[in-house]
Amino acid sequence: MLPRLQVDETLEMPIYRQISESIRDAVVNGTLEPGERLPATRALADQLGLNRQTISSAYELLEQEGFIKGQVGRGSFVTLPVGASPRGIDWDGLLQEEPKLAAPPSAPDSVISFTASRPSELLFPLDEFRATCQEVIAEPAAASILQLGAPAGYRPLRKHLFADAAKEGLARATDDVIVTNGVQQALDLIQRVLCGGSGGPVVIEDPVYLGLKNIFATAGTRVIGVPVTQDGIDLEVLARILLRERPRLLVLTPNFQNPTGATMPLEARRQVIRMAREAQVVLVENDIYGALRYRGDALPTLKELDESGDVVLLRSFSKLAFPGLRVGWVIAPKPLTARLAEAKQCCDLHTDQLSQAVLLRFAESGRLEQHREHILKTGLERLECALSTCQRVMPEGTVFTKPDGGMNLWIRLPEQLDSGELLGPAQREGVAYLPGKYFAVSRDQSSCLRISFAGLDPDKIRHGLEVLGKLFRSEASRVRAARTYEPATALV
Amino acid sequence: MLPRLQVDETLEMPIYRQISESIRDAVVNGTLEPGERLPATRALADQLGLNRQTISSAYELLEQEGFIKGQVGRGSFVTLPVGASPRGIDWDGLLQEEPKLAAPPSAPDSVISFTASRPSELLFPLDEFRATCQEVIAEPAAASILQLGAPAGYRPLRKHLFADAAKEGLARATDDVIVTNGVQQALDLIQRVLCGGSGGPVVIEDPVYLGLKNIFATAGTRVIGVPVTQDGIDLEVLARILLRERPRLLVLTPNFQNPTGATMPLEARRQVIRMAREAQVVLVENDIYGALRYRGDALPTLKELDESGDVVLLRSFSKLAFPGLRVGWVIAPKPLTARLAEAKQCCDLHTDQLSQAVLLRFAESGRLEQHREHILKTGLERLECALSTCQRVMPEGTVFTKPDGGMNLWIRLPEQLDSGELLGPAQREGVAYLPGKYFAVSRDQSSCLRISFAGLDPDKIRHGLEVLGKLFRSEASRVRAARTYEPATALV
Repeated sequence: MLPRLQVDETLEMPIYRQISESIRDAVVNGTLEPGERLPATRALADQLGLNRQTISSAYELLEQEGFIKGQVGRGSFVTLPVGASPRGIDWDGLLQEEPKLAAPPSAPDSVISFTASRPSELLFPLDEFRATCQEVIAEPAAASILQLGAPAGYRPLRKHLFADAAKEGLARATDDVIVTNGVQQALDLIQRVLCGGSGGPVVIEDPVYLGLKNIFATAGTRVIGVPVTQDGIDLEVLARILLRERPRLLVLTPNFQNPTGATMPLEARRQVIRMAREAQVVLVENDIYGALRYRGDALPTLKELDESGDVVLLRSFSKLAFPGLRVGWVIAPKPLTARLAEAKQCCDLHTDQLSQAVLLRFAESGRLEQHREHILKTGLERLECALSTCQRVMPEGTVFTKPDGGMNLWIRLPEQLDSGELLGPAQREGVAYLPGKYFAVSRDQSSCLRISFAGLDPDKIRHGLEVLGKLFRSEASRVRAARTYEPATALV
Repeated sequence: MLPRLQVDETLEMPIYRQISESIRDAVVNGTLEPGERLPATRALADQLGLNRQTISSAYELLEQEGFIKGQVGRGSFVTLPVGASPRGIDWDGLLQEEPKLAAPPSAPDSVISFTASRPSELLFPLDEFRATCQEVIAEPAAASILQLGAPAGYRPLRKHLFADAAKEGLARATDDVIVTNGVQQALDLIQRVLCGGSGGPVVIEDPVYLGLKNIFATAGTRVIGVPVTQDGIDLEVLARILLRERPRLLVLTPNFQNPTGATMPLEARRQVIRMAREAQVVLVENDIYGALRYRGDALPTLKELDESGDVVLLRSFSKLAFPGLRVGWVIAPKPLTARLAEAKQCCDLHTDQLSQAVLLRFAESGRLEQHREHILKTGLERLECALSTCQRVMPEGTVFTKPDGGMNLWIRLPEQLDSGELLGPAQREGVAYLPGKYFAVSRDQSSCLRISFAGLDPDKIRHGLEVLGKLFRSEASRVRAARTYEPATALV
């Protein structure tokens, strides 16, 4: 029914509009229902102490707008105006769920969480960061940093990154550098530029970081997983797939791969470059963990080994320092970086310039390298603690990778224990990890799990793994016992 | 020919490997050419003072690797190993150019440039920015800002934006907010989530900002342009297109549209909402210029007027302050923001958190509003200067929009003058603008141009437009004269 109408003579809006708007609102929000009769103009005028003509004007406007309809001799009735149907967008119907694995649930803060492949914020050199920031914003050039920038990135940062890469023997005169919002966006831009239309499938490691698989899977590009061992991608399987599938793209993480921590030996690097060149496949080298080698000698990147100069190298600041600042970069042949810059402009114009300028200064001032030295020291402690504890506490038959750097190791439990099923009990005891299924491409990884050790101190690593080891040992024993004592089929 | 080989007995690598690697490198880098004969094993052993077996082992390895081939009785010859073909990736073939208009050329700094729809960096409140930055980095929470964040955005910023929008009557309980890298990324994410697969075409304004058209065009989504007048999109044409094409998406900029500066009156806003609801099309409201009204009363946004709550509202800090910090946001029904956050995670994990935190503080401290007041004052001067100068200097028959805010106005030259052809002469006289063709969707805009006035002070605006006016007047006279005095076809 018609709500109590109020008019305000001090408003600029004419009274008849105030009335028509109130009635319109009542129709739209359902207070007045279609078919209801409005009061006669005279009755409403009397009720409100207004001129009858004012009410008539309001009704006329409502009729023009299609909210009411007058019927001769009967009065005015609420109609549902054309197009003002209460039927909104059916969002759930429109946004059909794609058949993909949702992101894993996040653990509560109180839990010892091995779930995130990221540095510990307790190790962030905050004072150095603050000093860097202040230097950058104090510069006279600050205004130009805050102004709209170039799609390929902040020029002084690009120059620095390119010079650094050239010094390392990575970048050639035929290469260029483009700044991205971390490696994630670099991969996304590569997908956009290289995987559209009739391009072949993409070959990735299996298991692999979920975010990498999702980039291609959500874009509708077919992904083919090649198994990863302790020594990186299986070259024999890769050779067969390159021959059979003629892929467009091969994405590898030769250093401390996520989730396995696997690292390709030198000879495997050489071989994979030869294979990629023969197959004319674009080889993308995700080197996001390369700066995090805690022990042993560094190996040359694929980019450095590649004589053709065609390898596309991805790097980032984010595993070393301040991942909340989204700055990574691509070093690749110029025709490709030019197209990536076009795609970048379409995606988000350019990467945030404040962070680009701050990270440049952090690097140029030597603070980054100083921080890296600290991170390598703590990283080694954490890695060794994780490996020795696994060795000590995991059930017999457990297999795990033994990386020399990075943030992750990969555990395969014995007796086909299901790491997904064991997560609940583990969390109840205060420890979380990511089950293998979140990293599976085309192979079953259900008895595997990823342990991201770099964000936790040795005490937490030790305690967390001891809890997991005890749980897994007990579960393995239970399974073995059940198997041993399972009654044979009845003899009849 | 074979370079001088050197071996180092102090290295861990066996001598025969050192030799094979040196030879391999010589083959790969072309010092040793395919077909060349290697020295006999004995000769090379003598030359290097090594055991002959060492050389034989090196040669065997090279043969295994496919770099040399022994021929009985003739010696060992360099072959090009399979897969080590010098043929690299054919980047130009791989990266086939898409048929789209390249970005317009940028003008040299000395030129008075009306080309960029962005604020002037001379107006950036640098001291306030510096103070804001220092407050943010001094906070104990700085470490968490620098840590990896959530795909939907920095929570305190999201809370602030949502509360603000709720206070304005824009956001309801059924809505949520997601932070993006400016409006550009918001549109890109919307394209990804809503335009994949079998979705219909997208309806946009014609002319429109090139970056908006490119998002859909490069993704292969069909775009349909609807003409924009001084009062925004042509509703009659829109009605026909909604009926005929069943589009998936309708993207509008009701306030100070780019490039025209057009603003939709209230009644047109109401009507377009009714039309969108009837057609069940998702209505995206790009309100990037909404905060820049220099004169006249603000009009309610589509989001506010929409009773169904389905309008998707896009806003940004970037036209008001610091576009180099890429922070915008979307207010939309929760099912959509949830999917946008998933897409965002796939694209680049999340928006830079340092900039999110700094802009939040800039807003919460009242500095943003204070800066806005200053911008509105200078903006009014610039707008009025641009309009009055155009009125005074443009050739007879010129039509231009008369916006009350934003950064742009749109000029249609008389006599079908070609704004693209006139750009060269204009630049030679020290003035640049963007020709209409860069904004055309499906209609010819070649006699139009965009004048972005907000980044220039009144003196520059006046002088720049006077130069253009003189050039255009002279060209218009020339065309008229040529037409008038063109000799009639000879009578024979």
